[in-house]
Amino acid sequence: MERAADHAELALLLEVAGTPKPGNVDRHRDLPDLRFEHFLVGAVGSRPGLSMAEDGAAIGPAFERAVRGMASQGGGNTQFGALLLLVPLVQAARTELSPDVADSVVEDTSVADAAAFYRAFDHVDVFVDDPPSELDDLDVRRGSDAIPRLKERELTLYEVLAGGVPGDDVAREWVTGFERSFAAADRLAATPGTVTERTAATFLALLAERPDTLVTKRRGEAVADRVSDRAATLHERSAVRTDPDAVETFADDLVQREINPGTTADLTAAGLFIALERGTLAV
Amino acid sequence: MERAADHAELALLLEVAGTPKPGNVDRHRDLPDLRFEHFLVGAVGSRPGLSMAEDGAAIGPAFERAVRGMASQGGGNTQFGALLLLVPLVQAARTELSPDVADSVVEDTSVADAAAFYRAFDHVDVFVDDPPSELDDLDVRRGSDAIPRLKERELTLYEVLAGGVPGDDVAREWVTGFERSFAAADRLAATPGTVTERTAATFLALLAERPDTLVTKRRGEAVADRVSDRAATLHERSAVRTDPDAVETFADDLVQREINPGTTADLTAAGLFIALERGTLAV
Repeated sequence: MERAADHAELALLLEVAGTPKPGNVDRHRDLPDLRFEHFLVGAVGSRPGLSMAEDGAAIGPAFERAVRGMASQGGGNTQFGALLLLVPLVQAARTELSPDVADSVVEDTSVADAAAFYRAFDHVDVFVDDPPSELDDLDVRRGSDAIPRLKERELTLYEVLAGGVPGDDVAREWVTGFERSFAAADRLAATPGTVTERTAATFLALLAERPDTLVTKRRGEAVADRVSDRAATLHERSAVRTDPDAVETFADDLVQREINPGTTADLTAAGLFIALERGTLAV
Repeated sequence: MERAADHAELALLLEVAGTPKPGNVDRHRDLPDLRFEHFLVGAVGSRPGLSMAEDGAAIGPAFERAVRGMASQGGGNTQFGALLLLVPLVQAARTELSPDVADSVVEDTSVADAAAFYRAFDHVDVFVDDPPSELDDLDVRRGSDAIPRLKERELTLYEVLAGGVPGDDVAREWVTGFERSFAAADRLAATPGTVTERTAATFLALLAERPDTLVTKRRGEAVADRVSDRAATLHERSAVRTDPDAVETFADDLVQREINPGTTADLTAAGLFIALERGTLAV
């Protein structure tokens, strides 16, 4: 398997298969309205958009196509954030999969890419914060209705996402050369065990490192901080390997409290893609 | 999602996710050297071959390509039998996904298709029986070495597979208009529950109906018959729904005894494809 779109699709599948991934759908857990099979359909459905990125299409249209295909299942938003990372990374892999090339790919995005990004919100419900009131007319929840205003202001997709930092750690990747995605790939390569165990350990390390911004948006900073602290305690003693039951308990507890660190899962998927593409993660 | 190759790939993914699927890798079970993630890679890897079939390529080359991609993982043979059903069904879907069209697709195969089928065995270890001694030089385990003799005898792929019946219920589908695959699709559509539960119930019904031919080859008729009888007892009382623990126990027992009804899984995947393609199985 040598195509970047194959690796991107596989990254989405391995991400959801990785277990335990506290708070999220994984091989052993479903959420009430979001099940494992929705993620399988989402991964296969996103494929045409990922292929567009591999073939050199612009980021915005490739992303919109990926999201439209992803949304062809009954679970709603499964991999929106992951695709927002994977599409530019697949595009970068055409030249070289490095932070510098990824940087230039996102910095080169256009106003048309931003418009396509807004259109992507027409296909699926994505949980986002209220924008600052001066940006009301650019609220992504307005979807394609916001496009005229966007064009008036001549905002590129890079600028739109830069406006989302801080507060959204997927957007943050766009302005940091995909720092944590690349670090996650290194960790996946360096961690012992099966792909599933490596994925779980990497997810936990990412969650320990920074509070999950989706949890912050939905449940507030205090909850997100506590989740992250608990992840750090487990991560410090390599609990995925040394005390798997403790991680399972953490996972069940978060699912029960409906705390879903989805941003951390998105970063894990990006790390999986980079590791697969570099050949440092054999399956 | 409207492409037949998407549905075929998704069928492979839903098949392995379906649980409990007694004796096989499923969402909750791995075998010692064959893990869930090998099937994920196998499904993504088989995609180029499935796309070839969708685009009208001949059955043999499309199948060989699918198997070559499927084999790009460390687990060995994951979906050889399933692909031998899916490739002609994807091809049939170009016209109409019916027993009659599927029949004509396989009957139209050529000697070149048979040669490609033999080449597919070069990519992966497939468990097969010893051939009758007069067919030694056409033993599929000889892979592409058998091709000159095959051409001499002018055997088409249809004739090669017809020669495998009885004793191989994947080959049997080729000579019966994919009878059990279509019946499995009907059952998937008619069974209540999530896709996972429907898949598990359909697998159990297929296993109850006829002894698994892979089990027969590996472990003998008596073992295969007993497994099938036990499946029938569970199936008769709709145990997937009414007594899931009993099915789980059966599943654990078969895994422990290394009894793997792989042919039944292949038929389940074919049924999933037909149901997805017909739109009778929403995910």
